[in-house]
Amino acid sequence: MNATTITSTHSGTTRGPVDHEVRNQIVIAATQHFRLYGYEKTTVSDLAKAIGFSKAYIYKFFESKQAIGELICANCLHEIETDVRSAVDGGGYPSEKFRRMFKTIVESSLRLFFEDRKLYDIAASAATENWESVRTYEARIKMLLQDILIQGRETGEFERKTPLDETAASIYLVFRPYLNPLILQHSLDSTADAPAQLSSLILRSLSP
Amino acid sequence: MNATTITSTHSGTTRGPVDHEVRNQIVIAATQHFRLYGYEKTTVSDLAKAIGFSKAYIYKFFESKQAIGELICANCLHEIETDVRSAVDGGGYPSEKFRRMFKTIVESSLRLFFEDRKLYDIAASAATENWESVRTYEARIKMLLQDILIQGRETGEFERKTPLDETAASIYLVFRPYLNPLILQHSLDSTADAPAQLSSLILRSLSP
Repeated sequence: MNATTITSTHSGTTRGPVDHEVRNQIVIAATQHFRLYGYEKTTVSDLAKAIGFSKAYIYKFFESKQAIGELICANCLHEIETDVRSAVDGGGYPSEKFRRMFKTIVESSLRLFFEDRKLYDIAASAATENWESVRTYEARIKMLLQDILIQGRETGEFERKTPLDETAASIYLVFRPYLNPLILQHSLDSTADAPAQLSSLILRSLSP
Repeated sequence: MNATTITSTHSGTTRGPVDHEVRNQIVIAATQHFRLYGYEKTTVSDLAKAIGFSKAYIYKFFESKQAIGELICANCLHEIETDVRSAVDGGGYPSEKFRRMFKTIVESSLRLFFEDRKLYDIAASAATENWESVRTYEARIKMLLQDILIQGRETGEFERKTPLDETAASIYLVFRPYLNPLILQHSLDSTADAPAQLSSLILRSLSP
């Protein structure tokens, strides 16, 4: 997901590079502000005051607080996705890629959603309200999973009897508690061992 | 878990049948009251007023609101466990028992935790604070799972290479989001298909 895609999601009109620059400035300032004071409790007025723009000026670039939150959330999910992709791109057998994928999803989600506890707010709203950025992210993780499954089937490392859709859907259900910040917060006790244990279980289910 | 076990959990002293009767009366009245008004918002004073006992009299039988909540929670988890046991006792191959076990955990948890939305409060507190009733329940579900795995290993339906502990622990991690009411509330979209899909995945992982 590149910056252009993110921007175009939230704006029907074509905007020039200057507009893009201002949007970025607002997003960076808003991220800082939400980090300190939380997303839920902040209004666009608070934000305007804090970052020294007028409320009307902010509304020229974002139609609502959620539109700003969407962009921050998309950036955050994009960061997780980048981590996961680079873990998978490290090469090796499809089974090794799979293990690294699961491990990185958990580690990167923990880092992004919980180290910045105040940004957890945004991720939680995004997951509760099923924002577009979340749906896009989930679709991309599913695609990445499917690619590994296809590679494993082609190299003969994974079984081919089960329909690919079924295999992918059931593995995604195992991933889900670790992708979704609302669920992840209740699984913090098990995040150290879960990816390895569950990867082993899933890889046993994939053996030809 | 029979009534005696539950009672003895919350009381160090030996109590006669009359005391037991009064405790039951309080629990039944409290369950009704929590069902209507929620657990979190109710105080022991509210409860005393509503059920026509003095606060002091209630404290003779329960040391706190949580002690009453614990017993209601234990009863609720006991009901789920009974459902699961009778589903498993239905006979058939270990694989069939396993499928029924998972299906019943989900269906019974949904019914107990969410149909009575006001009782969800208690289950949520219990899960958040890791009450003894929850720990006992989880241990019993783990034992039941382990029994099925042992049967499947003995009959040759399941593989025996993976250490039993490891197999059981990883399967339990797959169950967990559907046992824990805090997590289950965020998985309501997937509860219709998840047990069947995940059972198939797990059974593939168990094949010799």
